[in-house]
Amino acid sequence: MSIKHFTTSDLAAMPRFTRTALVNSLSGFKSANLIGTKSRVGVENLAIFSSAVHIGADPALLGIVFRPVTADRKTSRHTYENIKETGFFTLNHVHTSIVEAAHQTSANYPDNASEFETVGLTPQYIPNFSAPFVQESAIKMGLEYVEEYVIKANNTIFLIGKIVEILLPEHCLDVHGNLDLNAAQTVTVSGLDTYHTATEITRLPYARPK
Amino acid sequence: MSIKHFTTSDLAAMPRFTRTALVNSLSGFKSANLIGTKSRVGVENLAIFSSAVHIGADPALLGIVFRPVTADRKTSRHTYENIKETGFFTLNHVHTSIVEAAHQTSANYPDNASEFETVGLTPQYIPNFSAPFVQESAIKMGLEYVEEYVIKANNTIFLIGKIVEILLPEHCLDVHGNLDLNAAQTVTVSGLDTYHTATEITRLPYARPK
Repeated sequence: MSIKHFTTSDLAAMPRFTRTALVNSLSGFKSANLIGTKSRVGVENLAIFSSAVHIGADPALLGIVFRPVTADRKTSRHTYENIKETGFFTLNHVHTSIVEAAHQTSANYPDNASEFETVGLTPQYIPNFSAPFVQESAIKMGLEYVEEYVIKANNTIFLIGKIVEILLPEHCLDVHGNLDLNAAQTVTVSGLDTYHTATEITRLPYARPK
Repeated sequence: MSIKHFTTSDLAAMPRFTRTALVNSLSGFKSANLIGTKSRVGVENLAIFSSAVHIGADPALLGIVFRPVTADRKTSRHTYENIKETGFFTLNHVHTSIVEAAHQTSANYPDNASEFETVGLTPQYIPNFSAPFVQESAIKMGLEYVEEYVIKANNTIFLIGKIVEILLPEHCLDVHGNLDLNAAQTVTVSGLDTYHTATEITRLPYARPK
């Protein structure tokens, strides 16, 4: 097996898009979630994110990485602005039958357009929660803004949200709290644009010294 | 399809392990990486993490979530301490044939034990980089500590590293910089303990308004 070795200077010398594709693949498989928000004046926004990461279970916290607010992709910036304006957002798993629609939310639509409408997904509201869920998603959460950190190294924003609502299909949940993401057909992403289904290979017990 | 709806108070009322399993499943599929470090006095450490997240491509940055340094799991705390002491660490993809060994690194071994040795993985060194790689891993990176943020909400630490070395099998990389994680047999994790292989369903073009 032939091994390629890249150093910092090799990365710097790569064409920008090659470097972006490569580095986006290096962390491994990523989550695929649609973030639903609504601006203070009522414009809904929907955007795909692959950066949701578990922060803690009690309280239930997730972190999301946002590109610098000056970045060109409006849909991600609108998501951030709406969360800051309203304090609430939803996280909706992308599953196999909505992959194309979910990916299409990353296009640069006009400021007053709802990505729900343009990509053909349905906003869903529940009592006492202001942000729109994706009706077509199986596993979805409502979150409340908690805090954020500006990453000095590149001005990305790491935003922390608290999970306050969870909606999921009963058949995906076992008595121990484990969620069967494959039964929900949740997908995973690699790099910038490649979507995958998963197949369970093993569940391992809590590790103790042998 | 019957839908379960949990709110903040339902989560608070759950048994601790049920809540932990459920909330750990909610972000979706996660990356599975082994972090290799060496203490200043030369003790190697290896620990599995599912929290690596892409931060930026230029410079090439990753973020990792560490539990509070007071947490019970020594292997994760040793990883953090070694990174702070030496400034360097490696990130090594977990693939199908090392899943059991990788998971076993999360057991509480004595302070002076090397998880490489106890789980049966091989430390690998390259010139001019002090932290150990996992020889058995196909895709691996050497990183330099950049900065960290203490998440006020629960005292976890979000640590940023810069990718300075990349080692990967040439057959996994295409001319556009895309890495085929399935060809490398990289696995993905759900919840606390369930490992999966992935199968590509589609690669989608850069999205533009239709």
